[in-house]
Amino acid sequence: MSERYDIAIIGSGPAGLEAAINAKIRNKNVIIFGNKDFSPKLIKAPKINNYLGFYNISGKELKNQFENHIKNMNINIVEERIDAVYAMGEYFALMVNQKMYEATSVILATGIEYGKPIKGEEEFLGKGVGYCATCDAPLYKGKIVAIIGYNKEAEHEANYVSELASTVYYIPMYKGDLELNSNIHIINGIPKEIVGEDRVTKLILNSEIIETDGVFVLKDSISPSQLVPGLEMENGHIKVDRSMRTNIRRCYAAGDCVGKPYQYMKAAGEGQIAGLTAVDEL
Amino acid sequence: MSERYDIAIIGSGPAGLEAAINAKIRNKNVIIFGNKDFSPKLIKAPKINNYLGFYNISGKELKNQFENHIKNMNINIVEERIDAVYAMGEYFALMVNQKMYEATSVILATGIEYGKPIKGEEEFLGKGVGYCATCDAPLYKGKIVAIIGYNKEAEHEANYVSELASTVYYIPMYKGDLELNSNIHIINGIPKEIVGEDRVTKLILNSEIIETDGVFVLKDSISPSQLVPGLEMENGHIKVDRSMRTNIRRCYAAGDCVGKPYQYMKAAGEGQIAGLTAVDEL
Ligand SMILES: Cc1cc2nc3c(=O)[nH]c(=O)nc-3n(C[C@H](O)[C@H](O)[C@H](O)COP(=O)(O)OP(=O)(O)OC[C@H]3O[C@@H](n4cnc5c(N)ncnc54)[C@H](O)[C@@H]3O)c2cc1C
Ligand SMILES: Cc1cc2nc3c(=O)[nH]c(=O)nc-3n(C[C@H](O)[C@H](O)[C@H](O)COP(=O)(O)OP(=O)(O)OC[C@H]3O[C@@H](n4cnc5c(N)ncnc54)[C@H](O)[C@@H]3O)c2cc1C
Repeated sequence: MSERYDIAIIGSGPAGLEAAINAKIRNKNVIIFGNKDFSPKLIKAPKINNYLGFYNISGKELKNQFENHIKNMNINIVEERIDAVYAMGEYFALMVNQKMYEATSVILATGIEYGKPIKGEEEFLGKGVGYCATCDAPLYKGKIVAIIGYNKEAEHEANYVSELASTVYYIPMYKGDLELNSNIHIINGIPKEIVGEDRVTKLILNSEIIETDGVFVLKDSISPSQLVPGLEMENGHIKVDRSMRTNIRRCYAAGDCVGKPYQYMKAAGEGQIAGLTAVDEL
Repeated sequence: MSERYDIAIIGSGPAGLEAAINAKIRNKNVIIFGNKDFSPKLIKAPKINNYLGFYNISGKELKNQFENHIKNMNINIVEERIDAVYAMGEYFALMVNQKMYEATSVILATGIEYGKPIKGEEEFLGKGVGYCATCDAPLYKGKIVAIIGYNKEAEHEANYVSELASTVYYIPMYKGDLELNSNIHIINGIPKEIVGEDRVTKLILNSEIIETDGVFVLKDSISPSQLVPGLEMENGHIKVDRSMRTNIRRCYAAGDCVGKPYQYMKAAGEGQIAGLTAVDEL
């Protein structure tokens, strides 16, 4: 049987790290998932002036400060990407490929993808635009679907959809070999706009225009509502109260994933609140 | 005519400093009121482990880091205590004794007094217990009033009340000479409990019991709703939305004064949000 952690934190940016520190100070058994560079958005920042206490610091230097802090507290980041979180009643099951972790509480600190949406993407979200092709595939039985894929996993989704839809277009946004069913049409072009009236009717690329009933945009990060089935969202962010509780009992969230402004200090401050609320409610 | 600042920040703890930094980065004309040690709650902390980036740092050292940061950004703390803030429509008037400052927006980052209330203090608040003797004095014309004073200013309030009330007891909670009207009874004792039925009837001290119609507790910090007339409170804290807006247009708040947990990082994170919202709404 796998170990049951008190609190599992998903994401190793400032929000996740600060949550971990606060829970650890209160002697909780904490596990934090993320990557050894903590956050791409941290190490890529050229100069940071708005993190109180560090003037004119580079993202890499700030990352080193964070690293020193958590190492001294014996917090180690587990380098795994959580694929799904299921609320099991008394605990949460966190899925990583074939493995499973168990925790009594979960803090979501996954950050946000703020790659510019395609023109029309937000307008038609839920009206033909979707982010989870496998979830919505049944709606497109016998219909035309365009899939904009940002990574290899998107190919699996495309293959699945191609078994139901009449036509599937696949627009890869990355380089490399594609493993797609032979009935999928590969289109090399850059998506410019999604258009329609009540619902999507066309996807405009720089190279051509496709008539389609649906467009799936499959990005690198799983959206929080895909990661945690049943999670309530609000305007593209996880809905939380002032204590950083989500709509799911013992599931909290902090940082960019709960809303603007997208900033380190705001993320860390919320991570602290989430960590302390989680501890209180164990 | 006095200069009109874009944003006036009241309080120089982590919330106020982080608000100032963010507004300054966006080129706003900012003024921040507080004291040169920033915050008594900062310099008195023996060891801090939960401010991400600084492991095992003393409050004094963290204060030095903050000082270095704001000095590099040419932010100077104006050492004045704001007595009242009035919303004038297009701007706010910030009062300091005889002086007045003007600002388009105000951020309240005044922290919170979390000295334990006296037993019965909260129960009888508004039913004989008050925090502003000069405001409520007219209610006690010809009556008995006990004033628990935490600082010299409380003596002025006591003198004012003594012109209306039939009897004034003054219980000083500090050492030093008292400048009180001769008709005021000075009591040296420690207040233990405020009792009554519908309203206050007695103040119990370790030394004696006084029959009284009202008890004023005059602490160091003015409560936010006294500082800013019309400010909406909720469970003893300033009520704010997720963007740190109060109920008053262009008046924001952050840090301990808006709610628990009382912590540096949470205060700073909220200060950042308040600063950025204020800038957006100028
Ligand atoms: C170039 C650049 C410069 C910036 N400069 C500044 C600046 O000067 N000042 C400022 O305040 N802000 C700045 N920002 C914004 C700042 O980076 C973000 O607001 C901040 O990083 C948000 O912190 P977070 O903890 O919410 O999420 P993130 O820092 O995004 O961290 C989330 C982490 O979670 C991981 N993760 C996500 N999903 C999973 C999963 N399922 N399993 C495991 N791990 C997962 C991600 O890989 C990532 O490492 C900048 C951003 C960029 C891109
Ligand atoms: C001994 C001690 C140890 C602590 N240790 C920790 C710790 O390890 N970790 C942690 O996270 N937190 C700790 N805290 C809590 C932390 O100090 C507070 O949460 C934090 O300081 C709140 O920041 P703030 O900016 O909201 O307000 P404050 O830091 O209280 O600052 C408010 C400032 O505003 C000034 N001010 C108020 N009214 C006015 C006015 N009308 N005009 C002008 N100026 C005004 C005050 O004088 C003060 O300087 C500790 C507190 C204490 C007392």
